[in-house]
Amino acid sequence: MNKIKDIFKKSLTTTQDEANLEPSNSRRDFFKNTAALSVSAVAATSVLGPVKAFADDPAIVGEAAWGTKLGDPVDKNLYGVPSPYEHNNIRRVTDLLSSGDMYASISMCPIHESEGIITPNGLFFCRNHGGTAHVDPNEFRLMIHGKVKREVVLTLEELKKYPSETRTYFIECPANGSPEWRAPQFNNLQFMKGMMSCAQWTGVMLKTILDDIGLEDDAAWMLAEGSDNAGNPRTIPVAKALDDIMVVWGQNGEALRPEQGYPIRLVVPGWEGNLNTKWLKRLEFSDKPWHSKEETSKYTMLQKSGKAIQYFWPNEVNSVITKPCPEKPWTHLKKGDLVEIEGLAWSGHGTIKHVDISLDGGDNWVEASLKGLVLPKCWTRFSYMYKWDGKPILLSSRATDDINNTQPTIDQETSVVGVENVYHRNGIVTWEVTGKGEVNNVHIRKHKKA
Amino acid sequence: MNKIKDIFKKSLTTTQDEANLEPSNSRRDFFKNTAALSVSAVAATSVLGPVKAFADDPAIVGEAAWGTKLGDPVDKNLYGVPSPYEHNNIRRVTDLLSSGDMYASISMCPIHESEGIITPNGLFFCRNHGGTAHVDPNEFRLMIHGKVKREVVLTLEELKKYPSETRTYFIECPANGSPEWRAPQFNNLQFMKGMMSCAQWTGVMLKTILDDIGLEDDAAWMLAEGSDNAGNPRTIPVAKALDDIMVVWGQNGEALRPEQGYPIRLVVPGWEGNLNTKWLKRLEFSDKPWHSKEETSKYTMLQKSGKAIQYFWPNEVNSVITKPCPEKPWTHLKKGDLVEIEGLAWSGHGTIKHVDISLDGGDNWVEASLKGLVLPKCWTRFSYMYKWDGKPILLSSRATDDINNTQPTIDQETSVVGVENVYHRNGIVTWEVTGKGEVNNVHIRKHKKA
Repeated sequence: MNKIKDIFKKSLTTTQDEANLEPSNSRRDFFKNTAALSVSAVAATSVLGPVKAFADDPAIVGEAAWGTKLGDPVDKNLYGVPSPYEHNNIRRVTDLLSSGDMYASISMCPIHESEGIITPNGLFFCRNHGGTAHVDPNEFRLMIHGKVKREVVLTLEELKKYPSETRTYFIECPANGSPEWRAPQFNNLQFMKGMMSCAQWTGVMLKTILDDIGLEDDAAWMLAEGSDNAGNPRTIPVAKALDDIMVVWGQNGEALRPEQGYPIRLVVPGWEGNLNTKWLKRLEFSDKPWHSKEETSKYTMLQKSGKAIQYFWPNEVNSVITKPCPEKPWTHLKKGDLVEIEGLAWSGHGTIKHVDISLDGGDNWVEASLKGLVLPKCWTRFSYMYKWDGKPILLSSRATDDINNTQPTIDQETSVVGVENVYHRNGIVTWEVTGKGEVNNVHIRKHKKA
Repeated sequence: MNKIKDIFKKSLTTTQDEANLEPSNSRRDFFKNTAALSVSAVAATSVLGPVKAFADDPAIVGEAAWGTKLGDPVDKNLYGVPSPYEHNNIRRVTDLLSSGDMYASISMCPIHESEGIITPNGLFFCRNHGGTAHVDPNEFRLMIHGKVKREVVLTLEELKKYPSETRTYFIECPANGSPEWRAPQFNNLQFMKGMMSCAQWTGVMLKTILDDIGLEDDAAWMLAEGSDNAGNPRTIPVAKALDDIMVVWGQNGEALRPEQGYPIRLVVPGWEGNLNTKWLKRLEFSDKPWHSKEETSKYTMLQKSGKAIQYFWPNEVNSVITKPCPEKPWTHLKKGDLVEIEGLAWSGHGTIKHVDISLDGGDNWVEASLKGLVLPKCWTRFSYMYKWDGKPILLSSRATDDINNTQPTIDQETSVVGVENVYHRNGIVTWEVTGKGEVNNVHIRKHKKA
């Protein structure tokens, strides 16, 4: 029995840092990066600033109201809900990106409120072409047919007999940032970049099923179709199906939500959100692609020449600063305050290698720290400690992935793609921080000036 | 511009397997472990069993009801909720573990429904001594005082100025499994082991704050106290505070829920859940421990001798099989079916090193695969592919952590600790699987017989 001995020995030394799995990238010494800018000024500074008097703070000398009475009993919320004070912690919609009746519409994830690298299920962005279907799991069937050795129709129970995997991947609508191409209009992070979220997905690798039932030798393409009224048929190369596509029933530790395709969706890591078919009905295999409505009239990449690229699947390397942002300004900061600049980076091609930060609109760059888990095709958090002198700055982030793709500037991007495209925008976003700490989408200001 | 080229080159080869961060531990070949038991029988078997006729299945030949009409508009749930079909995906309470009025009570996490290694916030287990406090974040203050160089009172805004970290840790009530000691009574996984959950926590490392404000040289102990009516004062050694304790405001990507201590709680990785103070009010430092009510009359480890061990902090290495379990039986399986045995392992001392499975009540053991992320002081999923011959089996799991602590048998555990203790039970759990595929807590049957 080893119940008692060595309680401290390991408990006090094994951390997620040492396991090298959630490295804090030297952030324990949180002055490190800041020091590169202004060594002497920062070293003597506390994050808290000058000592504050608190003996007369009623919130500390008095008894808090909630401390003098019983709270809610534990059976009040058998499925819990957020604090009513977190009124910005919701998805939001706009007529601008909707059919107006909100059936063919999109709800944006509040990424300005996000922490870490996963999105709670209640906040995961949602793009539907015909509303949220409510599927009876007892009537769910998945048909796999065409160029397979054994055509099957699976119930949910049968599908779940396959061994499961859990992996963390972002899903991003290729139209994320679409309103920005022609005339930037959102001075707001949630609407600018909220067509994405990230989750831990549980299901079976599609390869496991295909290994089991067998593919014909000339099966080169797969059609995925949903059981909702829109169906959303999309063509995917078999090479991707055999790589990392998952047939998913779990999201962040529980069953998929209705608006995410309950009971079953496809997860196609790193590729256009629209390929991640919800309310999945069938997978058909063929030697030819399908050229469906959703990959001809929509979801093609319009070029300056007027021609469009079809089957442009991966979401490219991208990033955005989430703190500060228009909804999370620095208006509470004082001159000389030390502050963490934080953001999200992601790439449909692989793993984020590094993220650079510019404080002067892109003339000079310094490297940010990557914090927490750094996983392929997954949101990656970056961080940069900064001592703000209270003057206006132009704040940008620029991510690079592990095949050395780097975000272009907006000018570089539009010079190639033009401004009539609505997909795959990954140009560098710049926030203007004013002397008062307000934060604006600088691209709006530039656009009005031009 | 690298917009077009090499789209496939990396997208098709970089997976979370290759990054060696979410290893699938040879589960791609999901027959591998099964083969150790019965090579020839399994190799020729599909997970799906014999080909099934489906031409007359009304669910596949007909049009699904939800596919013929519009679904819900996207603005129906700006904070989403689970499918109404997932009626077991809720926390549950019992009078047996409550003051009866559900204020000093506990709601159990449905770990039999869990997927992967995190618990959605709405399902995170909840133990309160005086109900769920509802804290106004504007009136929140955290006082840090006693043997520190600079006593401070922090608002939420000030606290969040510190750089944040995100880490994944389980929290477990030391009383998890407590009803099992004297007379096992729950033939149900949720009530047997549901006093635990696991989440991604975001906040500041306590060490970062203490480095900033300074500790006195003789500060050896810390008292953490909540602002709710129960307060729950607990003493924690400074060595732990300087190691991996976090002052947390985010859980799984959003603000803490009210029942988890909104706006601020302590996370004390791997140690008794009761130390993870919710609605945090103050941290006091001293050269002596406090011996508070919650660490003298409660949360001590009663021994067979009648003496109790005080300050027994870490939750020890533990595991339980979640599939199958009494709520997730094998009644739908046929003789000869291939099935995944799956469960959770965890240790407050560090990282799970391996998990063994027994099919005969502990006489023989085979090693299971660890799947997905394997992180210190975090739930770890294990898996074992098994071809069930339809006969009754006694199914056990036994976890070992990276300081080579291994779960004892229940007999070994009670021979040392006795049966009057209610804390820190980590004896091996055994499920009896009957010939019909029903699953029972075998300890109940043994106990009745004895």
